[in-house]
Amino acid sequence: MKKIAVLGCGTVGSGVVEVFYKNRASIERKAGSKLDIKYLYVHRPHPELPWQDKLCFDFDTIANDPEINIVVEVMGGVHPAFEMVSTCLQNGKSVATANKELIAQKGAELLATAREHHVNILFEASVGGGIPIIRPLHQCLGANEIDDIQGILNGTTNFILTRMIRQGMSFSDALGQAQQLGYAESDPTADVEGIDACRKICILASLAFGKHIYPDWVHCQGISQLTAEDVAYAQDWGGVIKLIARAHRLQDNGGIAITVEPMFVSHESQLSTVDDVFNGILVTGDATGEVLFYGKGAGKLPTASAVISDVIDCAKSTDTIDTLYWEQSDPVKDSGLLCDWSQLPAQYYLRLALQAPSQSALVDELFCSPVLLARKRQPATELAFVAPSMAPATLDALCDRLQQEGISVLGRIRLL
Amino acid sequence: MKKIAVLGCGTVGSGVVEVFYKNRASIERKAGSKLDIKYLYVHRPHPELPWQDKLCFDFDTIANDPEINIVVEVMGGVHPAFEMVSTCLQNGKSVATANKELIAQKGAELLATAREHHVNILFEASVGGGIPIIRPLHQCLGANEIDDIQGILNGTTNFILTRMIRQGMSFSDALGQAQQLGYAESDPTADVEGIDACRKICILASLAFGKHIYPDWVHCQGISQLTAEDVAYAQDWGGVIKLIARAHRLQDNGGIAITVEPMFVSHESQLSTVDDVFNGILVTGDATGEVLFYGKGAGKLPTASAVISDVIDCAKSTDTIDTLYWEQSDPVKDSGLLCDWSQLPAQYYLRLALQAPSQSALVDELFCSPVLLARKRQPATELAFVAPSMAPATLDALCDRLQQEGISVLGRIRLL
Repeated sequence: MKKIAVLGCGTVGSGVVEVFYKNRASIERKAGSKLDIKYLYVHRPHPELPWQDKLCFDFDTIANDPEINIVVEVMGGVHPAFEMVSTCLQNGKSVATANKELIAQKGAELLATAREHHVNILFEASVGGGIPIIRPLHQCLGANEIDDIQGILNGTTNFILTRMIRQGMSFSDALGQAQQLGYAESDPTADVEGIDACRKICILASLAFGKHIYPDWVHCQGISQLTAEDVAYAQDWGGVIKLIARAHRLQDNGGIAITVEPMFVSHESQLSTVDDVFNGILVTGDATGEVLFYGKGAGKLPTASAVISDVIDCAKSTDTIDTLYWEQSDPVKDSGLLCDWSQLPAQYYLRLALQAPSQSALVDELFCSPVLLARKRQPATELAFVAPSMAPATLDALCDRLQQEGISVLGRIRLL
Repeated sequence: MKKIAVLGCGTVGSGVVEVFYKNRASIERKAGSKLDIKYLYVHRPHPELPWQDKLCFDFDTIANDPEINIVVEVMGGVHPAFEMVSTCLQNGKSVATANKELIAQKGAELLATAREHHVNILFEASVGGGIPIIRPLHQCLGANEIDDIQGILNGTTNFILTRMIRQGMSFSDALGQAQQLGYAESDPTADVEGIDACRKICILASLAFGKHIYPDWVHCQGISQLTAEDVAYAQDWGGVIKLIARAHRLQDNGGIAITVEPMFVSHESQLSTVDDVFNGILVTGDATGEVLFYGKGAGKLPTASAVISDVIDCAKSTDTIDTLYWEQSDPVKDSGLLCDWSQLPAQYYLRLALQAPSQSALVDELFCSPVLLARKRQPATELAFVAPSMAPATLDALCDRLQQEGISVLGRIRLL
């Protein structure tokens, strides 16, 4: 019999307990041993929970109980999760966590601690909720060098964008609807500003490229500045706007580029059809080509099921799973691991407000007479087009020039 | 150092050798041991191959070489692959195979032999080529009861259907184009009649439901009878025709139903956007909901990369991986494991040729005045509609009745 402690009993925590007892027989069969949940660690009494006999308010009891083999961490946040998970690993307990913030900040350190103590820290649920992605990336695609990962990794922003695209809603109306439906929190910053997606792409990139990538190295931009006009122009261009988290290896020098930003995605990309709260992750391996993983990226039961798949692996493993590993890096000194995105040439959609139609001559001069995009009821002084490929820093200079002439840049979105 | 023998050196076999030597360093790192290919088993000299020093014409040399830990079987066909793989397992060698025919016919037997000898038989490449599906199904979705698997599992038929949908081609023209491009073999029967897809869904169903499912238990129908007219009506209905291999658990009695047949797939299904030679597999688990796996279902390098991910697992495992298992069943006596599809109610699209427009009264009577589908240049005596849900056997009786009245059934396709 292997015993489990669950740290945290919010949505995901209670989902873990529910799914465990619902499918216990088949989970035990797959784990190859009897399993039970002994403790549910909580901060305060929860009289509404059905598992009163398992509630535990003292972490040390769990950390020092030799009966506990596996710890599930679903509290969220870096502290005190980091200290608790470290202690558990040091005490010879394997840990399954859904905590993307923890892994994005402390992943390499925790993986090293786990290896040192011959246990595991697994985190399938930290990216993509119930979509299998961590394990396929290091196991199934193990024969590949990963060249590119493009992900729609945040369900809240994808829901908002889908409403903006399908119903022509403004950002704030769509956000309001997401909040009403429980898809967005009352403080939606981490979602709409891309912070959540950034943590997740850093986890995937660390795994794919073997070095810890810190979120604050990454150029990260959210969707709060997007307008219904930009969405309409994207349609005219032949695609949709999606918040894309991307990590890829540059073909010329092998450098790594990571960005999180809204992008124009062509209808030809499988990612363009990933709608509502769904997530999609498109991985390109040198041998296998493009593989897409798609499903619900969040939610109680999908996330719980991913945590439990990790519990099963913790129960089965007799030592650290050594394909799941990346090296530590220094949060400051190693930031040069990533290419400077402002120097990487890319194509951008631009939307400009002229003061007079005659100013279009300057636009033609600066951007080589671009083909204009059109939509219904477009003001005569509005120009929208895709600029020739150039480094963002170069584009910044051109936009400064426009603004000097009184031309406002209303929209600027990169093409995937 | 662990040594590998590759049985068969066709497209996939030579792909395995290529990918192995290209990414050898990272493959060895993931496997946790040094690896090399010692033998390439072939029937006759292959002077064109660059690996002349590894060619071996005698299977017994391989079977009896204690240095060989891992055998890759990529010959195809049930015999002599079954005898060779069995011998290897009995001699304590793990096997990675891409052979779907072998696993669909002999999977349970080989899994039992592997378990008895504490080695592995792995077959990630047998379904979905380079798409990770076998391992996610038994590992990542291990906390789920699998309720439904819907797959586009055959790239050749999907290419043909995509040409019929996009260019309005006839089946035979599209098949001709597929053959020209090397996507279809000169004898395309196994692909176009659904036999290949049937083997693959049987492998997935055996794994999901725990009992060996034989292909000849399954209602299997190909795409060779489809017409451009049916494709046009599907569009009017709001979807596309896809060859769908489906295994699902019935909600009322828990019985298992498996079918391979062309189906009307709504544009709302993610499967409707799986085009060309790509494969897509939509798995529904009770906790995780719908998860889609998408990618190239065939081809030299994708398939080779899946085989090598199995080689890595063979190298790492110290005993049989026990989540990858299903029980044997009797090919004749146990056929009742599957529900009789002819008794399961379903909705069908029907296309009828009347002898006179007045006969539509009989159609209205038999099918409760269905809403008609329309397309351009439709003959006045042609009726197309979706019939009310009924068992296929009941529908057979109604179709017989129509034919007695001189009404021909030109098309009959199930709705997904």
